[in-house]
Amino acid sequence: MEPIYYIDLLGTMVFAISGAMAAMRHNIDIFGAAFTGFVTAIGGGSLRDIFLNLRPVWVDDGNYLLAILAGVLASVLLKRQLDKLARTLTLFDALGIGFFTIVGVQKSLAFDSSSAAAVVLGLFSAVMGGVTRDTLLNETPLIFRKEIYATACLSGAILFVVLNRFGVDYNLNAFLSASVVVIIRIIAVKYRLALPIVGG
Amino acid sequence: MEPIYYIDLLGTMVFAISGAMAAMRHNIDIFGAAFTGFVTAIGGGSLRDIFLNLRPVWVDDGNYLLAILAGVLASVLLKRQLDKLARTLTLFDALGIGFFTIVGVQKSLAFDSSSAAAVVLGLFSAVMGGVTRDTLLNETPLIFRKEIYATACLSGAILFVVLNRFGVDYNLNAFLSASVVVIIRIIAVKYRLALPIVGG
Amino acid sequence: MEPIYYIDLLGTMVFAISGAMAAMRHNIDIFGAAFTGFVTAIGGGSLRDIFLNLRPVWVDDGNYLLAILAGVLASVLLKRQLDKLARTLTLFDALGIGFFTIVGVQKSLAFDSSSAAAVVLGLFSAVMGGVTRDTLLNETPLIFRKEIYATACLSGAILFVVLNRFGVDYNLNAFLSASVVVIIRIIAVKYRLALPIVGG
Repeated sequence: MEPIYYIDLLGTMVFAISGAMAAMRHNIDIFGAAFTGFVTAIGGGSLRDIFLNLRPVWVDDGNYLLAILAGVLASVLLKRQLDKLARTLTLFDALGIGFFTIVGVQKSLAFDSSSAAAVVLGLFSAVMGGVTRDTLLNETPLIFRKEIYATACLSGAILFVVLNRFGVDYNLNAFLSASVVVIIRIIAVKYRLALPIVGG
Repeated sequence: MEPIYYIDLLGTMVFAISGAMAAMRHNIDIFGAAFTGFVTAIGGGSLRDIFLNLRPVWVDDGNYLLAILAGVLASVLLKRQLDKLARTLTLFDALGIGFFTIVGVQKSLAFDSSSAAAVVLGLFSAVMGGVTRDTLLNETPLIFRKEIYATACLSGAILFVVLNRFGVDYNLNAFLSASVVVIIRIIAVKYRLALPIVGG
Repeated sequence: MEPIYYIDLLGTMVFAISGAMAAMRHNIDIFGAAFTGFVTAIGGGSLRDIFLNLRPVWVDDGNYLLAILAGVLASVLLKRQLDKLARTLTLFDALGIGFFTIVGVQKSLAFDSSSAAAVVLGLFSAVMGGVTRDTLLNETPLIFRKEIYATACLSGAILFVVLNRFGVDYNLNAFLSASVVVIIRIIAVKYRLALPIVGG
Protein backbone atom coordinates (compact mmCIF):
# COMPACT_ATOMS: atom_id res chain seq x y z
CA MET A 1 0.00 0.00 0.00
CA GLU A 2 2.65 2.52 1.00
CA PRO A 3 4.57 2.68 -2.30
CA ILE A 4 1.30 2.89 -4.29
CA TYR A 5 0.19 5.81 -2.13
CA TYR A 6 3.37 7.77 -2.90
CA ILE A 7 3.20 6.92 -6.60
CA ASP A 8 -0.41 8.15 -6.58
CA LEU A 9 0.71 11.45 -5.02
CA LEU A 10 3.53 11.72 -7.57
CA GLY A 11 1.11 11.07 -10.44
CA THR A 12 -1.21 13.75 -9.03
CA MET A 13 1.66 16.23 -8.98
CA VAL A 14 2.66 15.40 -12.57
CA PHE A 15 -0.90 16.00 -13.76
CA ALA A 16 -0.99 19.30 -11.84
CA ILE A 17 2.18 20.38 -13.68
CA SER A 18 0.64 19.38 -17.03
CA GLY A 19 -2.50 21.43 -16.29
CA ALA A 20 -0.68 24.50 -14.99
CA MET A 21 1.71 24.55 -17.96
CA ALA A 22 -1.16 24.24 -20.45
CA ALA A 23 -2.91 27.18 -18.74
CA MET A 24 0.26 29.31 -18.84
CA ARG A 25 0.42 28.85 -22.61
CA HIS A 26 -2.98 30.64 -22.68
CA ASN A 27 -1.77 33.82 -20.96
CA ILE A 28 -3.82 33.02 -17.88
CA ASP A 29 -3.09 34.54 -14.46
CA ILE A 30 -1.46 32.65 -11.58
CA PHE A 31 -4.75 31.66 -10.03
CA GLY A 32 -6.03 30.34 -13.35
CA ALA A 33 -2.88 28.25 -13.71
CA ALA A 34 -3.36 26.83 -10.21
CA PHE A 35 -7.05 26.17 -10.84
CA THR A 36 -6.35 24.38 -14.12
CA GLY A 37 -3.56 22.37 -12.48
CA PHE A 38 -5.99 21.35 -9.76
CA VAL A 39 -8.82 20.16 -12.03
CA THR A 40 -6.35 18.33 -14.28
CA ALA A 41 -4.90 16.52 -11.28
CA ILE A 42 -8.15 15.56 -9.55
CA GLY A 43 -10.60 15.45 -12.50
CA GLY A 44 -10.21 11.81 -13.52
CA GLY A 45 -10.07 10.22 -10.09
CA SER A 46 -12.88 12.39 -8.75
CA LEU A 47 -15.19 11.46 -11.60
CA ARG A 48 -14.42 7.77 -11.03
CA ASP A 49 -15.16 8.12 -7.31
CA ILE A 50 -18.40 10.02 -7.94
CA PHE A 51 -19.57 7.30 -10.36
CA LEU A 52 -18.76 4.75 -7.64
CA ASN A 53 -20.72 6.90 -5.16
CA LEU A 54 -17.61 7.52 -3.03
CA ARG A 55 -15.99 10.71 -1.74
CA PRO A 56 -12.91 11.63 -3.80
CA VAL A 57 -9.71 10.95 -1.84
CA TRP A 58 -8.53 14.58 -1.82
CA VAL A 59 -11.62 15.66 0.17
CA ASP A 60 -10.38 13.68 3.16
CA ASP A 61 -6.61 13.53 2.61
CA GLY A 62 -4.89 16.93 2.48
CA ASN A 63 -1.68 15.45 1.04
CA TYR A 64 -3.21 15.38 -2.42
CA LEU A 65 -3.81 19.12 -2.28
CA LEU A 66 -0.23 19.64 -1.09
CA ALA A 67 1.05 17.58 -4.03
CA ILE A 68 -1.01 19.74 -6.39
CA LEU A 69 0.23 22.95 -4.77
CA ALA A 70 3.82 21.72 -5.16
CA GLY A 71 3.19 20.90 -8.82
CA VAL A 72 1.66 24.31 -9.52
CA LEU A 73 4.46 26.17 -7.74
CA ALA A 74 7.05 24.14 -9.65
CA SER A 75 5.31 25.02 -12.92
CA VAL A 76 5.31 28.73 -12.17
CA LEU A 77 8.85 28.93 -10.77
CA LEU A 78 10.54 26.51 -13.16
CA LYS A 79 8.59 27.33 -16.30
CA ARG A 80 11.61 27.60 -18.61
CA GLN A 81 13.35 24.51 -17.32
CA LEU A 82 10.12 22.48 -17.61
CA ASP A 83 9.56 23.64 -21.19
CA LYS A 84 12.96 22.18 -22.06
CA LEU A 85 11.99 18.96 -20.29
CA ALA A 86 9.00 18.41 -22.60
CA ARG A 87 10.27 14.99 -23.66
CA THR A 88 10.78 13.92 -20.05
CA LEU A 89 7.29 15.20 -19.24
CA THR A 90 5.87 12.95 -21.97
CA LEU A 91 7.53 10.06 -20.19
CA PHE A 92 6.15 11.20 -16.82
CA ASP A 93 2.72 11.59 -18.35
CA ALA A 94 2.94 8.07 -19.81
CA LEU A 95 3.87 6.72 -16.38
CA GLY A 96 1.03 8.74 -14.87
CA ILE A 97 -1.69 7.44 -17.16
CA GLY A 98 -0.35 3.89 -16.82
CA PHE A 99 -0.57 4.05 -13.07
CA PHE A 100 -3.88 5.92 -12.88
CA THR A 101 -5.54 3.48 -15.32
CA ILE A 102 -4.68 0.45 -13.21
CA VAL A 103 -5.53 2.12 -9.88
CA GLY A 104 -8.87 3.11 -11.42
CA VAL A 105 -9.70 -0.39 -12.65
CA GLN A 106 -8.67 -1.94 -9.36
CA LYS A 107 -10.66 0.48 -7.21
CA SER A 108 -13.76 0.03 -9.38
CA LEU A 109 -13.58 -3.75 -9.10
CA ALA A 110 -13.01 -3.42 -5.35
CA PHE A 111 -16.26 -1.46 -5.12
CA ASP A 112 -18.21 -4.03 -7.11
CA SER A 113 -18.55 -2.43 -10.52
CA SER A 114 -19.06 -4.73 -13.51
CA SER A 115 -15.85 -5.66 -15.37
CA ALA A 116 -16.83 -3.58 -18.39
CA ALA A 117 -17.54 -0.55 -16.17
CA ALA A 118 -14.16 -1.06 -14.43
CA VAL A 119 -12.45 -0.74 -17.81
CA VAL A 120 -14.36 2.48 -18.55
CA LEU A 121 -13.66 3.88 -15.08
CA GLY A 122 -9.95 3.00 -15.36
CA LEU A 123 -9.82 4.91 -18.62
CA PHE A 124 -11.73 7.84 -17.09
CA SER A 125 -9.32 7.97 -14.14
CA ALA A 126 -6.43 8.43 -16.53
CA VAL A 127 -7.87 10.76 -19.16
CA MET A 128 -10.77 12.81 -17.76
CA GLY A 129 -8.51 15.25 -15.94
CA GLY A 130 -6.98 16.16 -19.29
CA VAL A 131 -10.40 16.35 -20.96
CA THR A 132 -11.58 18.80 -18.29
CA ARG A 133 -8.37 20.83 -18.69
CA ASP A 134 -8.90 21.14 -22.45
CA THR A 135 -12.62 21.93 -22.12
CA LEU A 136 -11.84 24.69 -19.59
CA LEU A 137 -9.22 26.14 -21.91
CA ASN A 138 -11.76 25.98 -24.74
CA GLU A 139 -9.71 23.56 -26.86
CA THR A 140 -10.74 20.36 -28.60
CA PRO A 141 -9.76 17.72 -26.03
CA LEU A 142 -6.27 16.33 -26.63
CA ILE A 143 -7.52 12.75 -26.55
CA PHE A 144 -9.43 13.56 -29.74
CA ARG A 145 -6.41 14.92 -31.59
CA LYS A 146 -3.30 13.13 -30.43
CA GLU A 147 -1.34 10.01 -31.26
CA ILE A 148 -2.76 6.91 -29.56
CA TYR A 149 -3.45 7.98 -25.98
CA ALA A 150 -6.72 6.75 -24.55
CA THR A 151 -6.34 3.55 -26.56
CA ALA A 152 -3.17 2.78 -24.60
CA CYS A 153 -5.14 3.15 -21.34
CA LEU A 154 -7.98 1.04 -22.69
CA SER A 155 -5.57 -1.77 -23.67
CA GLY A 156 -3.99 -1.84 -20.23
CA ALA A 157 -7.38 -1.71 -18.50
CA ILE A 158 -8.73 -4.64 -20.53
CA LEU A 159 -5.54 -6.64 -19.92
CA PHE A 160 -5.85 -6.07 -16.16
CA VAL A 161 -9.47 -7.26 -16.09
CA VAL A 162 -8.67 -10.35 -18.18
CA LEU A 163 -5.59 -11.37 -16.14
CA ASN A 164 -7.58 -10.69 -12.97
CA ARG A 165 -10.27 -13.13 -14.16
CA PHE A 166 -7.57 -15.75 -14.71
CA GLY A 167 -6.39 -15.27 -11.13
CA VAL A 168 -3.01 -13.71 -11.90
CA ASP A 169 -1.32 -12.24 -8.81
CA TYR A 170 -2.47 -8.65 -8.23
CA ASN A 171 0.98 -7.02 -8.04
CA LEU A 172 2.27 -8.85 -11.12
CA ASN A 173 -0.93 -8.01 -12.99
CA ALA A 174 -0.73 -4.31 -12.02
CA PHE A 175 2.90 -4.15 -13.12
CA LEU A 176 2.25 -5.89 -16.46
CA SER A 177 -0.90 -3.91 -17.30
CA ALA A 178 0.55 -0.54 -16.39
CA SER A 179 3.64 -1.39 -18.45
CA VAL A 180 1.44 -2.12 -21.47
CA VAL A 181 -0.10 1.37 -21.17
CA VAL A 182 3.31 3.04 -20.86
CA ILE A 183 4.94 1.07 -23.69
CA ILE A 184 2.05 1.56 -26.18
CA ARG A 185 2.00 5.26 -25.37
CA ILE A 186 5.76 5.74 -25.76
CA ILE A 187 5.87 3.80 -29.03
CA ALA A 188 2.91 5.87 -30.32
CA VAL A 189 4.68 9.15 -29.50
CA LYS A 190 8.01 7.97 -30.98
CA TYR A 191 6.51 6.78 -34.27
CA ARG A 192 3.57 9.26 -34.30
CA LEU A 193 1.05 6.45 -34.49
CA ALA A 194 -2.60 7.47 -34.69
CA LEU A 195 -5.91 5.69 -35.04
CA PRO A 196 -7.71 5.98 -38.38
CA ILE A 197 -10.08 8.91 -38.72
CA VAL A 198 -13.61 7.83 -39.60
CA GLY A 199 -15.27 11.13 -40.44
CA GLY A 200 -15.12 13.12 -43.64
CA MET B 1 -40.48 -3.66 -15.89
CA GLU B 2 -39.05 -5.90 -18.60
CA PRO B 3 -40.19 -3.89 -21.65
CA ILE B 4 -39.06 -0.61 -20.03
CA TYR B 5 -35.61 -2.11 -19.48
CA TYR B 6 -35.23 -3.01 -23.15
CA ILE B 7 -36.57 0.37 -24.28
CA ASP B 8 -34.01 2.00 -21.96
CA LEU B 9 -31.22 -0.04 -23.57
CA LEU B 10 -32.53 0.89 -27.04
CA GLY B 11 -32.63 4.58 -26.10
CA THR B 12 -29.05 4.31 -24.82
CA MET B 13 -27.95 2.81 -28.12
CA VAL B 14 -29.72 5.55 -30.12
CA PHE B 15 -27.95 8.25 -28.10
CA ALA B 16 -24.61 6.44 -28.61
CA ILE B 17 -25.23 6.56 -32.37
CA SER B 18 -26.08 10.26 -32.20
CA GLY B 19 -22.85 10.99 -30.29
CA ALA B 20 -20.60 8.87 -32.49
CA MET B 21 -22.01 10.37 -35.67
CA ALA B 22 -21.57 13.93 -34.39
CA ALA B 23 -17.93 13.12 -33.53
CA MET B 24 -17.28 11.65 -36.98
CA ARG B 25 -18.40 14.92 -38.57
CA HIS B 26 -15.44 16.50 -36.70
CA ASN B 27 -12.75 14.27 -38.27
CA ILE B 28 -12.14 12.55 -34.97
CA ASP B 29 -10.49 9.11 -34.68
CA ILE B 30 -12.38 5.89 -33.90
CA PHE B 31 -11.69 6.12 -30.20
CA GLY B 32 -12.93 9.71 -30.07
CA ALA B 33 -16.13 8.63 -31.81
CA ALA B 34 -16.61 5.82 -29.28
CA PHE B 35 -15.85 8.13 -26.37
CA THR B 36 -18.30 10.77 -27.58
CA GLY B 37 -20.94 8.11 -28.18
CA PHE B 38 -20.43 6.87 -24.65
CA VAL B 39 -20.76 10.24 -22.89
CA THR B 40 -23.78 11.16 -25.02
CA ALA B 41 -25.48 7.91 -24.07
CA ILE B 42 -24.75 7.95 -20.35
CA GLY B 43 -24.39 11.69 -19.64
CA GLY B 44 -27.98 12.56 -18.83
CA GLY B 45 -28.90 9.54 -16.74
CA SER B 46 -25.58 9.58 -14.88
CA LEU B 47 -25.99 13.22 -13.92
CA ARG B 48 -29.54 12.50 -12.68
CA ASP B 49 -28.29 9.55 -10.62
CA ILE B 50 -25.39 11.55 -9.17
CA PHE B 51 -27.79 14.34 -8.14
CA LEU B 52 -29.94 11.66 -6.47
CA ASN B 53 -26.80 10.29 -4.77
CA LEU B 54 -27.12 6.94 -6.55
CA ARG B 55 -24.67 4.91 -8.64
CA PRO B 56 -25.42 5.25 -12.37
CA VAL B 57 -26.97 2.04 -13.74
CA TRP B 58 -24.17 1.34 -16.23
CA VAL B 59 -21.62 0.98 -13.39
CA ASP B 60 -23.41 -2.16 -12.21
CA ASP B 61 -25.14 -3.44 -15.36
CA GLY B 62 -22.78 -4.28 -18.23
CA ASN B 63 -25.65 -4.43 -20.75
CA TYR B 64 -25.67 -0.66 -21.04
CA LEU B 65 -22.04 -0.66 -22.12
CA LEU B 66 -22.79 -3.41 -24.64
CA ALA B 67 -25.66 -1.31 -26.06
CA ILE B 68 -23.29 1.64 -26.41
CA LEU B 69 -20.61 -0.51 -28.06
CA ALA B 70 -23.23 -1.78 -30.51
CA GLY B 71 -24.32 1.79 -31.26
CA VAL B 72 -20.77 2.98 -31.85
CA LEU B 73 -19.91 0.01 -34.09
CA ALA B 74 -23.10 0.56 -36.08
CA SER B 75 -22.17 4.24 -36.52
CA VAL B 76 -18.68 3.42 -37.80
CA LEU B 77 -19.68 0.51 -40.06
CA LEU B 78 -22.96 1.92 -41.39
CA LYS B 79 -21.96 5.60 -41.57
CA ARG B 80 -23.29 6.21 -45.09
CA GLN B 81 -26.56 4.38 -44.55
CA LEU B 82 -27.16 6.22 -41.26
CA ASP B 83 -26.48 9.59 -42.88
CA LYS B 84 -29.31 8.85 -45.31
CA LEU B 85 -31.52 7.85 -42.38
CA ALA B 86 -31.22 11.32 -40.79
CA ARG B 87 -34.99 11.81 -40.76
CA THR B 88 -35.54 8.43 -39.13
CA LEU B 89 -32.87 9.28 -36.56
CA THR B 90 -34.79 12.45 -35.68
CA LEU B 91 -37.77 10.22 -34.96
CA PHE B 92 -35.62 7.84 -32.90
CA ASP B 93 -34.16 10.78 -31.03
CA ALA B 94 -37.66 12.12 -30.32
CA LEU B 95 -38.68 8.72 -28.97
CA GLY B 96 -35.46 8.60 -26.94
CA ILE B 97 -35.94 11.97 -25.25
CA GLY B 98 -39.61 11.19 -24.62
CA PHE B 99 -38.76 7.98 -22.88
CA PHE B 100 -35.71 9.28 -20.99
CA THR B 101 -37.67 12.29 -19.71
CA ILE B 102 -40.37 10.16 -18.13
CA VAL B 103 -37.97 7.55 -16.73
CA GLY B 104 -36.00 10.44 -15.20
CA VAL B 105 -39.04 12.05 -13.58
CA GLN B 106 -40.29 8.73 -12.28
CA LYS B 107 -36.94 7.67 -10.81
CA SER B 108 -36.47 11.06 -9.13
CA LEU B 109 -39.92 10.89 -7.50
CA ALA B 110 -39.22 7.30 -6.44
CA PHE B 111 -36.08 8.53 -4.65
CA ASP B 112 -37.97 11.32 -2.86
CA SER B 113 -36.97 14.42 -4.78
CA SER B 114 -39.36 17.37 -4.73
CA SER B 115 -41.80 17.55 -7.65
CA ALA B 116 -40.02 20.59 -9.10
CA ALA B 117 -36.65 18.83 -8.88
CA ALA B 118 -38.16 15.75 -10.55
CA VAL B 119 -39.13 17.91 -13.53
CA VAL B 120 -35.59 19.32 -13.73
CA LEU B 121 -34.02 15.88 -13.37
CA GLY B 122 -36.33 14.42 -16.04
CA LEU B 123 -35.22 17.16 -18.39
CA PHE B 124 -31.57 16.59 -17.48
CA SER B 125 -31.91 12.83 -18.15
CA ALA B 126 -33.05 13.59 -21.67
CA VAL B 127 -30.81 16.47 -22.71
CA MET B 128 -27.57 16.52 -20.69
CA GLY B 129 -25.96 13.74 -22.72
CA GLY B 130 -26.31 15.95 -25.78
CA VAL B 131 -25.08 19.02 -23.91
CA THR B 132 -21.95 17.11 -22.87
CA ARG B 133 -21.46 15.88 -26.45
CA ASP B 134 -21.60 19.42 -27.82
CA THR B 135 -19.36 20.85 -25.09
CA LEU B 136 -16.75 18.15 -25.78
CA LEU B 137 -16.88 18.89 -29.50
CA ASN B 138 -16.48 22.59 -28.67
CA GLU B 139 -19.84 23.61 -30.15
CA THR B 140 -22.60 25.76 -28.72
CA PRO B 141 -24.94 23.14 -27.23
CA LEU B 142 -27.68 22.10 -29.64
CA ILE B 143 -30.39 22.76 -27.07
CA PHE B 144 -29.44 26.44 -27.34
CA ARG B 145 -29.73 26.58 -31.11
CA LYS B 146 -32.38 24.16 -32.26
CA GLU B 147 -36.10 24.10 -32.82
CA ILE B 148 -38.05 23.43 -29.62
CA TYR B 149 -36.23 20.53 -27.97
CA ALA B 150 -35.80 20.85 -24.24
CA THR B 151 -39.17 22.60 -24.03
CA ALA B 152 -40.80 19.42 -25.33
CA CYS B 153 -39.14 17.45 -22.52
CA LEU B 154 -40.13 20.05 -19.97
CA SER B 155 -43.78 19.91 -21.08
CA GLY B 156 -43.90 16.14 -20.77
CA ALA B 157 -42.14 16.19 -17.41
CA ILE B 158 -44.57 18.73 -15.97
CA LEU B 159 -47.56 16.79 -17.33
CA PHE B 160 -46.29 13.60 -15.71
CA VAL B 161 -45.89 15.27 -12.31
CA VAL B 162 -49.36 16.87 -12.51
CA LEU B 163 -51.15 13.68 -13.60
CA ASN B 164 -49.21 11.78 -10.93
CA ARG B 165 -50.55 14.20 -8.28
CA PHE B 166 -54.07 13.51 -9.53
CA GLY B 167 -53.46 9.80 -9.09
CA VAL B 168 -53.55 8.84 -12.77
CA ASP B 169 -52.40 5.25 -13.37
CA TYR B 170 -48.61 5.12 -13.77
CA ASN B 171 -48.49 3.28 -17.10
CA LEU B 172 -51.17 5.46 -18.67
CA ASN B 173 -49.44 8.58 -17.35
CA ALA B 174 -46.03 7.48 -18.67
CA PHE B 175 -47.53 6.74 -22.09
CA LEU B 176 -49.40 10.07 -22.29
CA SER B 177 -46.50 12.20 -21.03
CA ALA B 178 -43.88 10.56 -23.23
CA SER B 179 -46.23 10.97 -26.20
CA VAL B 180 -46.52 14.70 -25.48
CA VAL B 181 -42.72 15.02 -25.64
CA VAL B 182 -42.50 13.08 -28.90
CA ILE B 183 -45.41 14.90 -30.57
CA ILE B 184 -44.24 18.41 -29.61
CA ARG B 185 -40.75 17.58 -30.81
CA ILE B 186 -41.87 16.13 -34.15
CA ILE B 187 -44.21 19.07 -34.83
CA ALA B 188 -41.39 21.49 -33.96
CA VAL B 189 -39.00 19.81 -36.41
CA LYS B 190 -41.63 19.59 -39.16
CA TYR B 191 -42.64 23.26 -38.91
CA ARG B 192 -39.24 24.55 -37.69
CA LEU B 193 -40.82 26.02 -34.57
CA ALA B 194 -38.47 27.85 -32.23
CA LEU B 195 -38.82 29.78 -29.01
CA PRO B 196 -38.40 33.55 -29.18
CA ILE B 197 -34.86 34.85 -28.73
CA VAL B 198 -34.61 37.29 -25.87
CA GLY B 199 -31.11 38.69 -26.34
CA GLY B 200 -29.90 41.41 -28.67
CA MET C 1 -30.34 29.42 10.59
CA GLU C 2 -33.36 31.29 9.24
CA PRO C 3 -31.58 34.44 7.98
CA ILE C 4 -28.81 32.36 6.37
CA TYR C 5 -31.44 30.29 4.55
CA TYR C 6 -33.02 33.39 3.02
CA ILE C 7 -29.63 34.87 2.11
CA ASP C 8 -28.80 31.57 0.42
CA LEU C 9 -32.02 31.76 -1.60
CA LEU C 10 -31.25 35.39 -2.48
CA GLY C 11 -27.72 34.47 -3.60
CA THR C 12 -29.18 31.66 -5.72
CA MET C 13 -31.53 34.14 -7.39
CA VAL C 14 -28.70 36.61 -8.07
CA PHE C 15 -26.63 33.90 -9.73
CA ALA C 16 -29.66 32.84 -11.80
CA ILE C 17 -29.96 36.44 -13.03
CA SER C 18 -26.26 36.54 -13.88
CA GLY C 19 -26.55 33.31 -15.90
CA ALA C 20 -29.73 34.27 -17.72
CA MET C 21 -28.36 37.69 -18.66
CA ALA C 22 -25.11 36.19 -19.97
CA ALA C 23 -27.13 33.76 -22.11
CA MET C 24 -29.31 36.58 -23.50
CA ARG C 25 -26.19 38.36 -24.74
CA HIS C 26 -25.62 35.26 -26.91
CA ASN C 27 -28.96 35.47 -28.75
CA ILE C 28 -30.19 32.35 -27.05
CA ASP C 29 -33.88 31.46 -26.75
CA ILE C 30 -35.91 31.78 -23.55
CA PHE C 31 -35.36 28.18 -22.55
CA GLY C 32 -31.61 28.49 -23.06
CA ALA C 33 -31.61 31.57 -20.84
CA ALA C 34 -33.52 29.70 -18.13
CA PHE C 35 -31.24 26.69 -18.45
CA THR C 36 -28.09 28.79 -18.20
CA GLY C 37 -29.54 30.67 -15.22
CA PHE C 38 -30.27 27.36 -13.55
CA VAL C 39 -26.80 25.84 -13.96
CA THR C 40 -25.13 29.09 -12.93
CA ALA C 41 -27.22 29.18 -9.77
CA ILE C 42 -26.84 25.56 -8.72
CA GLY C 43 -23.49 24.62 -10.31
CA GLY C 44 -21.14 25.56 -7.50
CA GLY C 45 -23.15 24.26 -4.56
CA SER C 46 -24.11 21.07 -6.37
CA LEU C 47 -20.50 20.26 -7.21
CA ARG C 48 -19.54 20.85 -3.56
CA ASP C 49 -22.34 18.57 -2.36
CA ILE C 50 -21.44 15.86 -4.87
CA PHE C 51 -17.79 15.95 -3.73
CA LEU C 52 -19.07 15.62 -0.14
CA ASN C 53 -21.26 12.69 -1.29
CA LEU C 54 -24.46 14.55 -0.37
CA ARG C 55 -27.62 15.32 -2.33
CA PRO C 56 -27.64 18.95 -3.52
CA VAL C 57 -30.17 21.03 -1.51
CA TRP C 58 -32.34 21.93 -4.52
CA VAL C 59 -33.19 18.25 -5.11
CA ASP C 60 -35.11 18.17 -1.83
CA ASP C 61 -36.11 21.81 -1.30
CA GLY C 62 -38.30 23.27 -4.08
CA ASN C 63 -37.73 26.86 -2.85
CA TYR C 64 -34.35 26.95 -4.59
CA LEU C 65 -35.99 26.20 -7.93
CA LEU C 66 -38.60 28.90 -7.25
CA ALA C 67 -35.81 31.40 -6.52
CA ILE C 68 -34.15 30.46 -9.82
CA LEU C 69 -37.43 30.76 -11.71
CA ALA C 70 -37.96 34.21 -10.20
CA GLY C 71 -34.43 35.24 -11.20
CA VAL C 72 -34.88 34.03 -14.77
CA LEU C 73 -38.27 35.72 -15.15
CA ALA C 74 -36.85 38.96 -13.76
CA SER C 75 -33.98 38.75 -16.27
CA VAL C 76 -36.31 38.30 -19.21
CA LEU C 77 -38.92 40.87 -18.17
CA LEU C 78 -36.58 43.52 -16.77
CA LYS C 79 -33.71 43.08 -19.21
CA ARG C 80 -33.21 46.79 -19.95
CA GLN C 81 -33.46 47.92 -16.36
CA LEU C 82 -31.02 45.22 -15.24
CA ASP C 83 -28.52 46.19 -17.93
CA LYS C 84 -28.48 49.68 -16.44
CA LEU C 85 -28.01 48.18 -13.00
CA ALA C 86 -24.72 46.53 -14.03
CA ARG C 87 -22.79 48.26 -11.25
CA THR C 88 -25.35 47.21 -8.66
CA LEU C 89 -25.18 43.67 -10.00
CA THR C 90 -21.42 43.65 -9.47
CA LEU C 91 -22.12 44.50 -5.84
CA PHE C 92 -24.78 41.77 -5.62
CA ASP C 93 -22.37 39.31 -7.22
CA ALA C 94 -19.65 40.28 -4.72
CA LEU C 95 -22.10 39.69 -1.86
CA GLY C 96 -23.13 36.41 -3.48
CA ILE C 97 -19.61 34.99 -3.80
CA GLY C 98 -18.76 36.19 -0.28
CA PHE C 99 -21.69 34.37 1.19
CA PHE C 100 -21.40 31.23 -0.94
CA THR C 101 -17.69 30.89 -0.15
CA ILE C 102 -18.27 30.86 3.60
CA VAL C 103 -21.34 28.60 3.45
CA GLY C 104 -19.26 26.22 1.33
CA VAL C 105 -16.32 26.14 3.74
CA GLN C 106 -18.60 25.72 6.73
CA LYS C 107 -20.64 22.89 5.18
CA SER C 108 -17.48 21.05 4.10
CA LEU C 109 -16.00 21.25 7.59
CA ALA C 110 -19.33 20.13 9.05
CA PHE C 111 -19.15 17.02 6.85
CA ASP C 112 -15.59 16.23 7.93
CA SER C 113 -13.53 17.32 4.96
CA SER C 114 -9.89 18.26 5.59
CA SER C 115 -9.27 21.98 6.14
CA ALA C 116 -7.47 22.30 2.81
CA ALA C 117 -10.35 20.60 1.01
CA ALA C 118 -12.83 22.91 2.79
CA VAL C 119 -10.99 25.90 1.31
CA VAL C 120 -11.16 24.38 -2.17
CA LEU C 121 -14.83 23.44 -1.77
CA GLY C 122 -15.68 26.94 -0.50
CA LEU C 123 -14.04 28.38 -3.58
CA PHE C 124 -15.87 25.89 -5.82
CA SER C 125 -19.23 26.78 -4.23
CA ALA C 126 -18.69 30.40 -5.20
CA VAL C 127 -17.14 30.14 -8.66
CA MET C 128 -18.05 26.84 -10.35
CA GLY C 129 -21.55 28.00 -11.32
CA GLY C 130 -19.93 30.78 -13.34
CA VAL C 131 -17.34 28.40 -14.80
CA THR C 132 -20.13 26.08 -15.98
CA ARG C 133 -22.03 29.06 -17.41
CA ASP C 134 -19.01 30.18 -19.43
CA THR C 135 -18.15 26.67 -20.60
CA LEU C 136 -21.75 26.15 -21.79
CA LEU C 137 -21.66 29.47 -23.67
CA ASN C 138 -18.35 28.39 -25.20
CA GLU C 139 -16.34 31.23 -23.64
CA THR C 140 -13.07 31.18 -21.75
CA PRO C 141 -14.24 31.09 -18.12
CA LEU C 142 -14.51 34.55 -16.59
CA ILE C 143 -12.38 33.53 -13.61
CA PHE C 144 -9.50 33.16 -16.06
CA ARG C 145 -9.88 36.62 -17.53
CA LYS C 146 -11.24 38.99 -14.90
CA GLU C 147 -9.87 41.25 -12.22
CA ILE C 148 -9.16 39.35 -8.99
CA TYR C 149 -12.23 37.18 -8.45
CA ALA C 150 -11.48 33.66 -7.29
CA THR C 151 -8.54 35.01 -5.30
CA ALA C 152 -10.98 37.05 -3.21
CA CYS C 153 -12.94 33.87 -2.43
CA LEU C 154 -9.76 31.97 -1.65
CA SER C 155 -8.62 34.66 0.81
CA GLY C 156 -11.94 34.62 2.66
CA ALA C 157 -12.01 30.82 2.72
CA ILE C 158 -8.50 30.58 4.18
CA LEU C 159 -9.31 33.26 6.77
CA PHE C 160 -12.42 31.36 7.86
CA VAL C 161 -10.48 28.10 8.32
CA VAL C 162 -7.69 29.85 10.27
CA LEU C 163 -10.04 31.79 12.58
CA ASN C 164 -12.08 28.62 13.05
CA ARG C 165 -8.92 26.79 14.23
CA PHE C 166 -8.33 29.60 16.74
CA GLY C 167 -11.85 29.07 18.07
CA VAL C 168 -13.31 32.40 16.93
CA ASP C 169 -17.11 32.54 17.29
CA TYR C 170 -18.79 31.10 14.19
CA ASN C 171 -21.08 34.05 13.42
CA LEU C 172 -18.30 36.61 13.89
CA ASN C 173 -15.96 34.50 11.78
CA ALA C 174 -18.54 34.12 9.00
CA PHE C 175 -19.19 37.85 8.99
CA LEU C 176 -15.47 38.77 8.93
CA SER C 177 -14.49 36.21 6.30
CA ALA C 178 -17.39 37.00 3.96
CA SER C 179 -16.57 40.71 4.34
CA VAL C 180 -12.98 40.05 3.27
CA VAL C 181 -14.23 38.40 0.07
CA VAL C 182 -16.62 41.26 -0.68
CA ILE C 183 -14.09 44.01 0.08
CA ILE C 184 -11.24 42.48 -1.93
CA ARG C 185 -13.58 41.91 -4.84
CA ILE C 186 -14.99 45.47 -4.80
CA ILE C 187 -11.53 47.04 -4.53
CA ALA C 188 -10.32 44.86 -7.41
CA VAL C 189 -13.20 45.95 -9.65
CA LYS C 190 -12.82 49.63 -8.69
CA TYR C 191 -9.06 49.76 -9.35
CA ARG C 192 -9.04 47.02 -12.05
CA LEU C 193 -6.56 44.94 -10.08
CA ALA C 194 -5.43 41.71 -11.69
CA LEU C 195 -3.02 38.94 -10.83
CA PRO C 196 0.18 38.74 -12.86
CA ILE C 197 0.03 36.62 -15.99
CA VAL C 198 2.64 33.89 -15.99
CA GLY C 199 2.46 32.57 -19.57
CA GLY C 200 3.97 33.99 -22.71
